[in-house]
Amino acid sequence: MAHEFRMRREVTFAETDMAGILHFSNYFRYMEEVEHAFFRSLGHSVHGDTKTGNFGWARREATCSYARPLRYQDEVELHLRVREKRSKAIVYETRFLLDGVEVARGSVAAVCIAKDEDGNLRAATMPPEIDAIIQVAPTE
Amino acid sequence: MAHEFRMRREVTFAETDMAGILHFSNYFRYMEEVEHAFFRSLGHSVHGDTKTGNFGWARREATCSYARPLRYQDEVELHLRVREKRSKAIVYETRFLLDGVEVARGSVAAVCIAKDEDGNLRAATMPPEIDAIIQVAPTE
Amino acid sequence: MAHEFRMRREVTFAETDMAGILHFSNYFRYMEEVEHAFFRSLGHSVHGDTKTGNFGWARREATCSYARPLRYQDEVELHLRVREKRSKAIVYETRFLLDGVEVARGSVAAVCIAKDEDGNLRAATMPPEIDAIIQVAPTE
Amino acid sequence: MAHEFRMRREVTFAETDMAGILHFSNYFRYMEEVEHAFFRSLGHSVHGDTKTGNFGWARREATCSYARPLRYQDEVELHLRVREKRSKAIVYETRFLLDGVEVARGSVAAVCIAKDEDGNLRAATMPPEIDAIIQVAPTE
Repeated sequence: MAHEFRMRREVTFAETDMAGILHFSNYFRYMEEVEHAFFRSLGHSVHGDTKTGNFGWARREATCSYARPLRYQDEVELHLRVREKRSKAIVYETRFLLDGVEVARGSVAAVCIAKDEDGNLRAATMPPEIDAIIQVAPTE
Repeated sequence: MAHEFRMRREVTFAETDMAGILHFSNYFRYMEEVEHAFFRSLGHSVHGDTKTGNFGWARREATCSYARPLRYQDEVELHLRVREKRSKAIVYETRFLLDGVEVARGSVAAVCIAKDEDGNLRAATMPPEIDAIIQVAPTE
Repeated sequence: MAHEFRMRREVTFAETDMAGILHFSNYFRYMEEVEHAFFRSLGHSVHGDTKTGNFGWARREATCSYARPLRYQDEVELHLRVREKRSKAIVYETRFLLDGVEVARGSVAAVCIAKDEDGNLRAATMPPEIDAIIQVAPTE
Repeated sequence: MAHEFRMRREVTFAETDMAGILHFSNYFRYMEEVEHAFFRSLGHSVHGDTKTGNFGWARREATCSYARPLRYQDEVELHLRVREKRSKAIVYETRFLLDGVEVARGSVAAVCIAKDEDGNLRAATMPPEIDAIIQVAPTE
């Protein structure tokens, strides 16, 4: 059972803006990257086939609060934790750490979706093999 | 005194992802665009000089909730409203409307920053000419 | 018969980088935007259905040369011209003009693609209704 | 003396487009990333101070040709080689390899720039410590 994941990510030049810092929208891309890496670490893809059919994860809500800026070539540690888990949704919280200091913190609520008989995407119960290996992280 | 702004924005091809929809991080770029257009509509730039010196607006917090996806060539109406105003900060709420239906809603808390005597960026009281023309939107 | 198209595009904050200018990769996004707007001006979508089936345009080659930088809020004029046309491909050239002065110039070679019987994307002769309305621009 | 550099880069979800492939503009970001990693491998930053003052590298020209698409989670090998070197400029060629097969190839011409006495950026002779460690790659 997994409830957290850590990865390092370096700020690239193209991700900065004219204020000289990582553009605030890119923190959401970093949060998606660590979420996907978490899934791969479990042997799954976020957009994959399972025994129960095609599924994916839609974003229902995303938030980020910024304490200190990140700059070009900063190597930030992304620390993802599973904060909530329901039958059709997972809420992740990701802390952004620079040299051990938290510089930002965000969350993403992801809803499991699958194609229904008419080919439309609908919220769906997550596949049992995913459900079986992800759990809520203990309170820190 | 201004408290809201509306603009239209078309979803471009490069902003979509392999799920065929506007990537969730790009909603934050749209919110920044309408905020900047709001400022320009008032005769100011978000990163400008004023009689009281250089200033800008740092992001303190950003959120977005997604109800329905947006797709390539959708022309979305962005409706920004000033939700809070303090001496050093403004909170904006932006509704995303497609054919009059709200498909997403987000917020950005922007803190006024200025360079202090040592050249460091610090939270600062917003310039009086900005303060004089922006007010909180009435409750809908 | 159409052979050129012009549109205006304003540089957004998120498109700049820490050097304070429009990031060089974003010129390619602008070139795609004007190409798509050109198609729409003709009553077609670049990714549409026609009487002859699904088709799209893949990028075979892209180039850009940069003479002067573009900055936040610059309103650049994009001037697209059809430079070559073959049965399966169109080469566009786009000039970037700021206050009438050329600041960059690029090209995109787009190859018409369609799904074959096995569902694979292959280079294909462009639909006749597209072929009928696009022509090479006269030499300036 | 260095003349080439290799790194691996995984295609992220946000970099794909609705055609399900890496958007063509992002290849230019990858080329910049490998160029910057090449510099760091030499103990320098592309935007750094040297004994001879502030300098940077502006893009004069960029090209890319695309043979096969790249997809989400593809791990592409970027192989940068120095193709030309002049007193004020370096031309890099980067090959994109997937499982050893070339899927794209591009080039970037970077011009060394420095601030003159009036604070304006101008093309400049590259710092001698940079000039001393970079050389043109042998023909393959």
